[in-house]
Amino acid sequence: MKAIGFKTSLPITAPESFIEFDLPTPVPTGHQLLVKIQAVSVNPVDFKIRQNAAKNVVLENPKVIGWDAVGVVEAVGEAVTLFAVGDAVYYAGDITQAGSNAEYQLIDERIVGKKPQNIGIEAAAAMPLTVLTAWETLFDRMRLSPEKDAGKTILIIGGAGGVGSIAIQLAKKLLGLRVIATASRPETKAWCEKMGADVVVNHKDLVNEVRQAGFQYVDFIYDVVDTNYYWDSMAELIKPQGHINSITGSATPVVLNKLKTKSVSFSWEFMFTRSTYQTDDMIEQHHILTRVAALLDEGVLTSTHTTTLQGLKASTFQQAHAQLESGTTIGKLVITFDA
Amino acid sequence: MKAIGFKTSLPITAPESFIEFDLPTPVPTGHQLLVKIQAVSVNPVDFKIRQNAAKNVVLENPKVIGWDAVGVVEAVGEAVTLFAVGDAVYYAGDITQAGSNAEYQLIDERIVGKKPQNIGIEAAAAMPLTVLTAWETLFDRMRLSPEKDAGKTILIIGGAGGVGSIAIQLAKKLLGLRVIATASRPETKAWCEKMGADVVVNHKDLVNEVRQAGFQYVDFIYDVVDTNYYWDSMAELIKPQGHINSITGSATPVVLNKLKTKSVSFSWEFMFTRSTYQTDDMIEQHHILTRVAALLDEGVLTSTHTTTLQGLKASTFQQAHAQLESGTTIGKLVITFDA
Repeated sequence: MKAIGFKTSLPITAPESFIEFDLPTPVPTGHQLLVKIQAVSVNPVDFKIRQNAAKNVVLENPKVIGWDAVGVVEAVGEAVTLFAVGDAVYYAGDITQAGSNAEYQLIDERIVGKKPQNIGIEAAAAMPLTVLTAWETLFDRMRLSPEKDAGKTILIIGGAGGVGSIAIQLAKKLLGLRVIATASRPETKAWCEKMGADVVVNHKDLVNEVRQAGFQYVDFIYDVVDTNYYWDSMAELIKPQGHINSITGSATPVVLNKLKTKSVSFSWEFMFTRSTYQTDDMIEQHHILTRVAALLDEGVLTSTHTTTLQGLKASTFQQAHAQLESGTTIGKLVITFDA
Repeated sequence: MKAIGFKTSLPITAPESFIEFDLPTPVPTGHQLLVKIQAVSVNPVDFKIRQNAAKNVVLENPKVIGWDAVGVVEAVGEAVTLFAVGDAVYYAGDITQAGSNAEYQLIDERIVGKKPQNIGIEAAAAMPLTVLTAWETLFDRMRLSPEKDAGKTILIIGGAGGVGSIAIQLAKKLLGLRVIATASRPETKAWCEKMGADVVVNHKDLVNEVRQAGFQYVDFIYDVVDTNYYWDSMAELIKPQGHINSITGSATPVVLNKLKTKSVSFSWEFMFTRSTYQTDDMIEQHHILTRVAALLDEGVLTSTHTTTLQGLKASTFQQAHAQLESGTTIGKLVITFDA
């Protein structure tokens, strides 16, 4: 099968930053599905791994990345019970395994959902990684519920990106939260409003912007941009007994004590935790994708897909990564493969 | 009225570490109750404040500390609706206000409960601060519930102290958690078992002790001893998607990123947050104390009272603080006042 990958970490402008090559088509065992990929989406984790996974080394076998796909089940392992050959599926995948930038991929059925039926392949491919991230953040890490939390406020730092866009929708439509999103350009501001944000503020002077919008404190903060950079602002803006979640990692130690007097909680969300640790509740990702498919089909949630590129080719992935590295992408970029 | 306090922070062995003096009996307004105190308990926060609140200064007016009391309502403010003159009450109080080491105290009715009826004054005085701390930790910060969490594991670092003793009971009896407590002496180990711990391990080699007891990871960790000291051990022992809570503060920055790959949450619990910030849900402490009184009356929970001293005198408080500063107190120390 054809695959796209890299043997060494290079700037995206280098001709060999992505290469094309052939691999044997893998054979599913156990809970694995073999999926013929129709479309993938690209996430920031992709270029972070491309930039860092093979620094100053040349891998013997190229690394295949990509964690988001829509496709059709071609074959199943002997333990598979949730899917059958011919099913249209969507999933984010497992960072410890080969990715979706290839003709075929093996994937554990417990982290796969049936593709939403009423939306297209591109719209569906945009969703898995970001919706799993935002869903796990709100429901599993923060344990929010409409019964307890409707009417409270959430500040989403980085509202126009992939995770921010769907987090706005989940917070607004499923939890009934009042959503304050950050964006700094007219087009990202408009996008956040389209996603359902009640208020959009500029992140460049965050504390003052939020206060001027009428909020002394916010109940919840979801940072999808930079934990260290926003730490002091978040400590200032979070309401007593509030909860902060971040997905970006923290390069340096933080003064955790700044959250103490307010009895504030902080959670990390890493969408690959369940598959990496093979947790007992790994099948939760199957359940989340199933529920999200229904919500997309019913029109409660809207795909965050904005941009499409075409073709399982090195040049397409170079163009996609260059776009994401610019940091200005709105919503999600999808790559469709040839039929 | 007679009160006990200090004008300057001194070692507890100094004759003037506590002094006796007279104050005008205060008059309740608004939501305040005037309570005639019958007994108080002493908590680590007391000696931390005595040691630090008047370092190298001499206060003009002595500082009255103490946050735990049982007494009888003597008078009420004009907005009081929850209590009447003559009610027996118990409460922890508000760290921004004068404490309970006095004949009378003003207290906001929203953080007061009716004293449990079937247990004595001493048994009741032992409970408010520690049970509010442990309750808020488990139910408000971690948002645990028996429906979601029964059968999971919690590690309580510091099981034999005031908060640890009641946390063991709440975790075991109300949530159905499997409780691993830490203790290092035969008498503290026996006490943790009496409180309901399933397993008691030594905290001196924590990771190995917990693993040797058969637990690779634990779902929840409640640290009531030292956040910085146990940070790496907690990061190692916490289960993917687990939740850590601490009450002790963190003197230096922490490497928060150690919790990221596991998608772990961390919460602070500070029992005085609600009263300090006058939060909208401040009355929750009234509700918690009301529910705890019923649970104590029914025998579901047991008072953690172990030691009684007698008399509203400087010497009694000196003895009590010396005892707590030794760090070896089991359960709770109570001081009863003269009738």
